[in-house]
Amino acid sequence: VGAKEKDTQCGCVSESRNLQTGRDKRDGTKSHPYVVQILGEKFPCSLVPQKIDLPEYQGEPDDISIQKCREAARQVQGPVLVEDTCLCFNALGGLPGPYIKWFLEKLKPEGLYQLLAGFEDKSAYALCTFALSTGRPEDPVQLFKGQTFGQIVEPRGCRDFGWDPCFQPDGYEQTYAELPKAVKNTISHRFRALRELQNYFLQPGSQRVLEGVPQLGEGEGAA
Amino acid sequence: VGAKEKDTQCGCVSESRNLQTGRDKRDGTKSHPYVVQILGEKFPCSLVPQKIDLPEYQGEPDDISIQKCREAARQVQGPVLVEDTCLCFNALGGLPGPYIKWFLEKLKPEGLYQLLAGFEDKSAYALCTFALSTGRPEDPVQLFKGQTFGQIVEPRGCRDFGWDPCFQPDGYEQTYAELPKAVKNTISHRFRALRELQNYFLQPGSQRVLEGVPQLGEGEGAA
Repeated sequence: VGAKEKDTQCGCVSESRNLQTGRDKRDGTKSHPYVVQILGEKFPCSLVPQKIDLPEYQGEPDDISIQKCREAARQVQGPVLVEDTCLCFNALGGLPGPYIKWFLEKLKPEGLYQLLAGFEDKSAYALCTFALSTGRPEDPVQLFKGQTFGQIVEPRGCRDFGWDPCFQPDGYEQTYAELPKAVKNTISHRFRALRELQNYFLQPGSQRVLEGVPQLGEGEGAA
Repeated sequence: VGAKEKDTQCGCVSESRNLQTGRDKRDGTKSHPYVVQILGEKFPCSLVPQKIDLPEYQGEPDDISIQKCREAARQVQGPVLVEDTCLCFNALGGLPGPYIKWFLEKLKPEGLYQLLAGFEDKSAYALCTFALSTGRPEDPVQLFKGQTFGQIVEPRGCRDFGWDPCFQPDGYEQTYAELPKAVKNTISHRFRALRELQNYFLQPGSQRVLEGVPQLGEGEGAA
């Protein structure tokens, strides 16, 4: 792991950048700083945040990530990593799930908690999916997923980060919003997904998936 | 209105046919029988149901209909009419809205009612949108919308039609599912949208929008 892998550039499209409609409201983070913040410099590819306009699809989380990643690769004309986040309420069969951003926008964390007033089961899980395409349409999109289980609670803590105030991870007395970032970053759905992604790239030979494909900066889409 | 207009074919894609994932569960209707059932033979275009595979998008209802109609026109290579239905809870800022099919699938009508347990406001509206494209990418997609206002109630009546058992239109003591079809078809969101569409086509000269564009059966997409 090092110079050679670092030469491998991978377009990184964070969910919050590829919006058609006010998605930035939801979570202003970019994946690239995230990767560094969460994994430090251990991540073997250099990620180049790309601002591209992707449609958001409806469907099951995996299908949405795959469709979005294929479209991103088509636009970027190279290897691309797309991030998607779901907040899934078990009482609602996994919903709002991929539609959480709209529910957060309309209901705020208070409303998300109220949504479960009629249901005993307040359990939920946060799901982060990184979808990786080599940029070659014939290659399958690979998914790297992280899940964190917890409860939907009355909002507590700092309001500056989406639905964090109403999600209390199992084994903690604090919500995501109350936990110190350093702690949250060791248990979060995003951390777990990134760790999967990192483990994949640390496997000997895994870099080969990105070899011989046009790198960012060469593809039209990267302009 | 008559023979001439009847020559104008308009591809009709009902929401329940263009699904990627188990959408048929939601509502097995086809627009074409609907148009006839609701408007009788007065509708000036002949509609040809097309089974095409369209992605479902996330976003605001109008934007979803426009995107879907553009994509349908691209595939059908001719004029096309796309139907979309939303069930919007006022307490939830209009949600589930375009995502109602997923909520119905996971929660059933009982669960839709339970979703509002924590909210005093049980008011809702059903929204039906017909999006019309001439098939020419440069022409704007036209929207014909019908809204029916009502309340989300504990499910009553026949279970064979989606969320009808939990929607009670204002001014009625019965739910959509309890109302005789003949009555429902004079107040439904779909009827109102179709009436808008019909009024448009009954305007002198309106047929011209569909003139000189490839008709269904000629376009590749129509195979």
